[in-house]
Amino acid sequence: MTPVPAELDLDLARKVLDAQPFSRLLGARVTAFGDGAATLELDLREEHRQQNGYVHGGVLSYAADNALTFAAGAALGPAVLTAGFSIQYVRPAVGAVLRARASVVHAGRRQAVVRCEVFCVDADDADDAGDTETLVAVAQGTVLNSA
Amino acid sequence: MTPVPAELDLDLARKVLDAQPFSRLLGARVTAFGDGAATLELDLREEHRQQNGYVHGGVLSYAADNALTFAAGAALGPAVLTAGFSIQYVRPAVGAVLRARASVVHAGRRQAVVRCEVFCVDADDADDAGDTETLVAVAQGTVLNSA
Amino acid sequence: MTPVPAELDLDLARKVLDAQPFSRLLGARVTAFGDGAATLELDLREEHRQQNGYVHGGVLSYAADNALTFAAGAALGPAVLTAGFSIQYVRPAVGAVLRARASVVHAGRRQAVVRCEVFCVDADDADDAGDTETLVAVAQGTVLNSA
Amino acid sequence: MTPVPAELDLDLARKVLDAQPFSRLLGARVTAFGDGAATLELDLREEHRQQNGYVHGGVLSYAADNALTFAAGAALGPAVLTAGFSIQYVRPAVGAVLRARASVVHAGRRQAVVRCEVFCVDADDADDAGDTETLVAVAQGTVLNSA
Repeated sequence: MTPVPAELDLDLARKVLDAQPFSRLLGARVTAFGDGAATLELDLREEHRQQNGYVHGGVLSYAADNALTFAAGAALGPAVLTAGFSIQYVRPAVGAVLRARASVVHAGRRQAVVRCEVFCVDADDADDAGDTETLVAVAQGTVLNSA
Repeated sequence: MTPVPAELDLDLARKVLDAQPFSRLLGARVTAFGDGAATLELDLREEHRQQNGYVHGGVLSYAADNALTFAAGAALGPAVLTAGFSIQYVRPAVGAVLRARASVVHAGRRQAVVRCEVFCVDADDADDAGDTETLVAVAQGTVLNSA
Repeated sequence: MTPVPAELDLDLARKVLDAQPFSRLLGARVTAFGDGAATLELDLREEHRQQNGYVHGGVLSYAADNALTFAAGAALGPAVLTAGFSIQYVRPAVGAVLRARASVVHAGRRQAVVRCEVFCVDADDADDAGDTETLVAVAQGTVLNSA
Repeated sequence: MTPVPAELDLDLARKVLDAQPFSRLLGARVTAFGDGAATLELDLREEHRQQNGYVHGGVLSYAADNALTFAAGAALGPAVLTAGFSIQYVRPAVGAVLRARASVVHAGRRQAVVRCEVFCVDADDADDAGDTETLVAVAQGTVLNSA
């Protein structure tokens, strides 16, 4: 549930994310934003794990929720409100970086339908270009235009 | 995606939660466990918020994910694996305590279907007995028996 | 995605359902409507089945979709538009009557969050009062106010 | 919830669909099957509509449910059981043909995660090759290996 200010671009999206104390707590960053799409990443740390050493499902659902909302903001603009989403876990999540890529399937006047894939990236020198992504979850949701 | 050890009771459920670094980071606790139901709580702090001062959707989805999984563990026993869930946000979340109550709708050999309500509790002296709960999200999901 | 006319009551809800060719094809009826809740039923026939003799998942999802939308109409009034929903199947569906009970969890200006339980009723003389219901699916969704 | 027999290929998938009275009632056909993917179609008729002339959401959810299950059957083989799915409606559905394309995102020993897009095809001479598809819904779900 993340309202987003006007005239959105990557710099502004980063300011919005940085204004989220919970995103700072988790260490999230926006690595791409625009044209109805957004990518969030966080460097995986021990504190993101559940008791078996895998990334906690709550970290994956946070990443999906926020990426869906930012992607919608990149299409609907300033004021968006995530109505809800569904997430399916694909496999246990391990790696150096968690990456959530979301893109708008359709944006209307009232709502946007958005999908998201959440990946783990093994390489410690993970970069959006040449690294190897492993899909760990898929999500989709509806984001409302709250303007 | 939270496997849970055998002979589950409230004490053991608390040990499992305490063995989740991410749950410790968020400050979650198990306040009820058994008979196919589980209640998780966390004291709401500034670090749980998004940029407007409301509890971040990712905190609500963490609470739902974990409560659903623990409730399933209270029915299926030791080894459970959350396949996925859906969450709908009801209203902006503010308050002193976040409480996620999950209960199993049906548990079979292969899977449990579980529902969850997430509440905010205003009172600083929130206690499960007489306090006032405000519903902020509803969730439902499928948890697999991974034994 | 079922817009509903103004001043809704049970009679009008029945007229709306009867104006849905697909609901007529399936033989659905509205048995309760009002106060943010709606109940739909259909007498189960061979044509509702999948290849194993159980009620087809598509019949269950139809009943959930429509009950969610009608319940929202009973809260939001005339113009509603179902954004989407999630359904979890609980057990194979067999019986004489399929019954979907939906009720609004919260209705705001922009949207309603609605939950639904889908039951099979064994008795051929199924009536909403004293009959035995078996839960076969649970659903929840978001319905938009399209006024 | 559609168990599927062994040694699946397009001919056998068609036999399974034809063994579903509900799919026959709706006039569905399998147009592609294999490699963890399946495509279902139905020629849109007046009886598929809701009261405004659009395809009823229940028809879209039927198509998604069944396409998800068949795609999982193309990956997991004989015995599959759909645990549940989530569907988001994108726009009002009108056209000559409804087409649901589903493909498996990941298939493990226990479950498959599957996604589906539902399209309307305007051309009366709709064919999978050169026709124009309009996206009307997206879905994703979990299908269990019930072997």
